[in-house]
Amino acid sequence: MEKTKVLFHVSENEVWPKALTNIQNFLKDVSDNQVEIELVANAGAVNFYYDNDKVNLHEQMSSLSSRGVKFAACRNALQAHSLKEELLPEFVQVVPGGITEIVKKQSMGFIYIKP
Amino acid sequence: MEKTKVLFHVSENEVWPKALTNIQNFLKDVSDNQVEIELVANAGAVNFYYDNDKVNLHEQMSSLSSRGVKFAACRNALQAHSLKEELLPEFVQVVPGGITEIVKKQSMGFIYIKP
Amino acid sequence: MEKTKVLFHVSENEVWPKALTNIQNFLKDVSDNQVEIELVANAGAVNFYYDNDKVNLHEQMSSLSSRGVKFAACRNALQAHSLKEELLPEFVQVVPGGITEIVKKQSMGFIYIKP
Repeated sequence: MEKTKVLFHVSENEVWPKALTNIQNFLKDVSDNQVEIELVANAGAVNFYYDNDKVNLHEQMSSLSSRGVKFAACRNALQAHSLKEELLPEFVQVVPGGITEIVKKQSMGFIYIKP
Repeated sequence: MEKTKVLFHVSENEVWPKALTNIQNFLKDVSDNQVEIELVANAGAVNFYYDNDKVNLHEQMSSLSSRGVKFAACRNALQAHSLKEELLPEFVQVVPGGITEIVKKQSMGFIYIKP
Repeated sequence: MEKTKVLFHVSENEVWPKALTNIQNFLKDVSDNQVEIELVANAGAVNFYYDNDKVNLHEQMSSLSSRGVKFAACRNALQAHSLKEELLPEFVQVVPGGITEIVKKQSMGFIYIKP
């Protein structure tokens, strides 16, 4: 059976806790191996990956990553905010363009959700 | 002819008036029996169902419900906000997980809109 | 090969700069003639079309329009905000209903993005 593929789009820093709760709750209802989940952060939301005050949420993200959730950061946004890719947490993957990534993944059958 | 199916996702309390106006306006352009509309409220947006100061908007929702619009509340969000299901307006249906519901409905062909 | 079709939905005035950056960046990754892009502004976001303080952003929109990006304004929203259609910038097209337009375009294969 084909996996259910879901893309979460986060474009504002404030939305992160809600987005992570969304994914946590969703994973209570489905088996990890039945879904493919990606979160694309673009615009100001990329700053969150660098916020060391958010230890608990970073741990939550790292834990979700180990369960197969892909966390992506838009390179355009990183550059616009002068953020260094090498300082990203290791569970984050850089994508050249956040919108391009979202379009590509929706074209591949991902369901779009804006938390 | 197959019905047009539309899912409105409301995750913030402030967005409710806009969401209801969206649905009202949309229903001016289509026949009630040609569409299937569902609004899923999750996160903080579930509080709105309990806000007794919003009599006019609750009446608008009740009226839309009688025209076939389904109003759903995410149980995870109700629990997170310590809200009692038995105190929900009667036109609201509880769904176990808001995100799971949105994924399911999009898989069934619903068009996603975030007001 | 079929064009990639993308619809951007802007419902808040504050989101405009982000939406325009999204489109600019996306167009760096694809050829103009491979994509069809439409931005639908509804609710309070229609006010932005009339904001003469935003000269730079209006020029950016006009330039994107000449590259084929369609900018639409919801007539319901224009009326709700007492805005005159004849005062819209020439690159803006009025659609009778913003939500109806979004539903129609998604039915036609447009990918939905909320910046």
